[in-house]
Amino acid sequence: MRFSELLARLSPGNAAGEPHLAADPELSGAAALDQAGPSQLSFLEAGHSLAAQLAASGAGALLLPSDPALQEQATSAGLAWVALKNPRLGFAEALEALYPARPRPSGIHPSAVVDPSASLGAGVSIAAHVVVGEGTVVGEGSTLHPGVVLYDDVVLAEGCEIHANAVLHPGSRLGRACVVHSNAVVGSEGFGFVPTASGWRKMPQTGLVVLEEGVEVGCGSTIDRPSVGETRIGAGTKIDNLVHIGHGVVTGQGCALAAQVGIAGGARLGNGVILAGQVGLANKAVMGDRSIASSKSGIHGEVAAGEVVSGYPAIPNRLWLRCSAAFNKLPEMARTLRQLSRDAS
Amino acid sequence: MRFSELLARLSPGNAAGEPHLAADPELSGAAALDQAGPSQLSFLEAGHSLAAQLAASGAGALLLPSDPALQEQATSAGLAWVALKNPRLGFAEALEALYPARPRPSGIHPSAVVDPSASLGAGVSIAAHVVVGEGTVVGEGSTLHPGVVLYDDVVLAEGCEIHANAVLHPGSRLGRACVVHSNAVVGSEGFGFVPTASGWRKMPQTGLVVLEEGVEVGCGSTIDRPSVGETRIGAGTKIDNLVHIGHGVVTGQGCALAAQVGIAGGARLGNGVILAGQVGLANKAVMGDRSIASSKSGIHGEVAAGEVVSGYPAIPNRLWLRCSAAFNKLPEMARTLRQLSRDAS
Amino acid sequence: MRFSELLARLSPGNAAGEPHLAADPELSGAAALDQAGPSQLSFLEAGHSLAAQLAASGAGALLLPSDPALQEQATSAGLAWVALKNPRLGFAEALEALYPARPRPSGIHPSAVVDPSASLGAGVSIAAHVVVGEGTVVGEGSTLHPGVVLYDDVVLAEGCEIHANAVLHPGSRLGRACVVHSNAVVGSEGFGFVPTASGWRKMPQTGLVVLEEGVEVGCGSTIDRPSVGETRIGAGTKIDNLVHIGHGVVTGQGCALAAQVGIAGGARLGNGVILAGQVGLANKAVMGDRSIASSKSGIHGEVAAGEVVSGYPAIPNRLWLRCSAAFNKLPEMARTLRQLSRDAS
Repeated sequence: MRFSELLARLSPGNAAGEPHLAADPELSGAAALDQAGPSQLSFLEAGHSLAAQLAASGAGALLLPSDPALQEQATSAGLAWVALKNPRLGFAEALEALYPARPRPSGIHPSAVVDPSASLGAGVSIAAHVVVGEGTVVGEGSTLHPGVVLYDDVVLAEGCEIHANAVLHPGSRLGRACVVHSNAVVGSEGFGFVPTASGWRKMPQTGLVVLEEGVEVGCGSTIDRPSVGETRIGAGTKIDNLVHIGHGVVTGQGCALAAQVGIAGGARLGNGVILAGQVGLANKAVMGDRSIASSKSGIHGEVAAGEVVSGYPAIPNRLWLRCSAAFNKLPEMARTLRQLSRDAS
Repeated sequence: MRFSELLARLSPGNAAGEPHLAADPELSGAAALDQAGPSQLSFLEAGHSLAAQLAASGAGALLLPSDPALQEQATSAGLAWVALKNPRLGFAEALEALYPARPRPSGIHPSAVVDPSASLGAGVSIAAHVVVGEGTVVGEGSTLHPGVVLYDDVVLAEGCEIHANAVLHPGSRLGRACVVHSNAVVGSEGFGFVPTASGWRKMPQTGLVVLEEGVEVGCGSTIDRPSVGETRIGAGTKIDNLVHIGHGVVTGQGCALAAQVGIAGGARLGNGVILAGQVGLANKAVMGDRSIASSKSGIHGEVAAGEVVSGYPAIPNRLWLRCSAAFNKLPEMARTLRQLSRDAS
Repeated sequence: MRFSELLARLSPGNAAGEPHLAADPELSGAAALDQAGPSQLSFLEAGHSLAAQLAASGAGALLLPSDPALQEQATSAGLAWVALKNPRLGFAEALEALYPARPRPSGIHPSAVVDPSASLGAGVSIAAHVVVGEGTVVGEGSTLHPGVVLYDDVVLAEGCEIHANAVLHPGSRLGRACVVHSNAVVGSEGFGFVPTASGWRKMPQTGLVVLEEGVEVGCGSTIDRPSVGETRIGAGTKIDNLVHIGHGVVTGQGCALAAQVGIAGGARLGNGVILAGQVGLANKAVMGDRSIASSKSGIHGEVAAGEVVSGYPAIPNRLWLRCSAAFNKLPEMARTLRQLSRDAS
């Protein structure tokens, strides 16, 4: 596809000026700036670490930010380019155009085992070795990849995609356009046991797991159902791989949970919360709207809206940075203190 | 079911007085105190965070602790209630009565692939797309959900339940009434490699993994077999999701391991040990009977019976709390120290 | 097998002297030194914690290091033994001889669903309920265990082994003799989203995941593909269970990543890097050749070749040990400081 054709596929509102087409190269794909060849598209955004390599880039065409210096470099290097308000967004759109998704086969593979009481919407795609349980509903246009197991009493709205070998348990309720990645588990029994004289006795987990519209659940992640009530993931929340979400957790909309995050039972997240990798939230912890926990931090209690926290137990990020710097000087501090004590005695 | 009928299903030894039946409401389910409606049961225990909401609760009936103040409130609010020695235990029993488990189909689904040399007990339930390997034994009344793979030489005793897409490798030995949740892996090869001049050489992992009676393994958790000998999980131990247990680990009875715990090879746990979320144990670490590691702590060496440890490297919890509080004041401590040094010089 | 026969199966270059055959026992297996019986082989290496138990060992035969004291003890105890330069390596070889791998059935199970456009090498073993997608290549002698899903456009070179219910996504490229353990996921979509006014917008992940020759991926581990370019795991790198590797990560050869390690997008590892359990690497972190991160450490920025780091944020291990020791004394340090301040005022 010519660069000019590709540009016609991008959101018009994102343009920040006329394209500089140079030779209007034919593009067959995309690559990072330092690896792209003449038939590949690349992009830069403000402050991008590869900006210094623009002049030497072999890319065929570039999406650039509104930065005259970069644009001049691109022109000097003989590259075709266009300036966009949000080059990263443009790159996402360009990748979709350059690498169109394969059409998925619609219909039900003969090896799939679908309970007669299940309800399948129009245009569903059910692959080999899928199992669909009693009373389960698969919304219009949803795709179940090979080996997916939907237990009884699962409901998927329209346009969901469930990747290979993922498992959805009874009481799972997925809104429109949810994506569950391979080997993830939704709606499994919460870890609830009552201590008794004869050991741990299981608390039945009879509740629901609700994924609102547009939620994504990463590979191998697990979202448990509660004893009563529901676990709820707000619309548009994105969950990376190997994340654990305990029973009764509720998140707001548009949160992002990075890989290996663990959220214990009953925790509450507001809208737009960001948890970096390997963060842990204790039972009933609360993260206010748009609060952020940096990687590996551990949160008890409540984090206010908009706050950025770090460390374990988590404290405000700025304080933590200073405390961590001081931690690295503890041996000298101890030495100084001993010296002062000796001098004072 | 009427509240009075439900009460007849609870352990008699747990009662702490006569029920206050008011209208003996018809109950169709259960919910948390602040969310329950007139056809729902709820419960409170001593010190429960929802106790303040009792008067305003719309629940139909309540399980209460032996607390006259709470009981009076419930009576004033016109609610039916009963006092129990252990309301949480009563609630677990009530949930089982209110939400009876679906009868599982017995028999072998025609799509299952069972090796002719496998031995299947009476009343087993083997779902679609299950695979049972050579010489494998499935005990009486055990259930294999869809997509489960039992390799060759696996033994399940009676009444085990293996959830969808879980995998059991050769040498797995499960006692009575074990539960393995979806996508868990038991008996996989331990991570054992010998460093050689030409790289890592695999140490064959020929041992067993033994799960004693009543063990539960959470979704996506992995329990490795050792090169020789066995990995052993003591009776009644409960393991949450995404937990890793290395080769040769031995745990006592009745332990509870929360989500994302990692236990390196050869570690030893006594009876009743509790590891909170994201805890890590180093190779050959030892946790004494009823010791507790709080979330995210990391343990080398040995923790004495009954001790509670925190932090990394883990130290006694009380000390850690004081050290952590002091950590947050390190910048001021450093400032004071600089001031004192200046004054002294 | 007689001990003398077994010895003939070990690498001759590893011998460190003539065997002391005593009775040349018949061996049926192997066990740890303190658990072995008369028909079992065991081994010791220099500094092994079980060395003190040699005299009391019931083992039939031993592989020993070049340590005259140990050898004398073994002789006194009437045990057959041989001295090896690397007893652990000899033990690995002996386990292979004592526990020969079961011959895997070659051919394609009738329940497997293989796309007609897929290309299967000679001698492949494709088990029950496997799915092989369009255009996918399975190299000669490779084994796909039950329930494995290979999406379209996956390439396995010769001699790969993919364990039960593992999933390989489009763009996965495996070199010779790679092993992917049960429920692992390779080639899944990287966690890439562009923040927009209407929420997170997916960045298409069109790149490849390349596992070079001899890579092993543990149970439940996930390796993501990038938006463009590739994620690459160097030859001979071994990855334990429940490890997450983000999009665009590149590792060198012969690295070892322990369980529950998480590596964020774009990080770079040199050759021979060792990451202990639960380590986290931030986006674009760099670990130089043969550097080591101890368990639970978190790395931002760059770690030099050969360096050993610990803690979060990670610092040199020796410094961290001293800082951690001082951390445990913070309450007394604070007390001393308060006293000095009082005295000074």
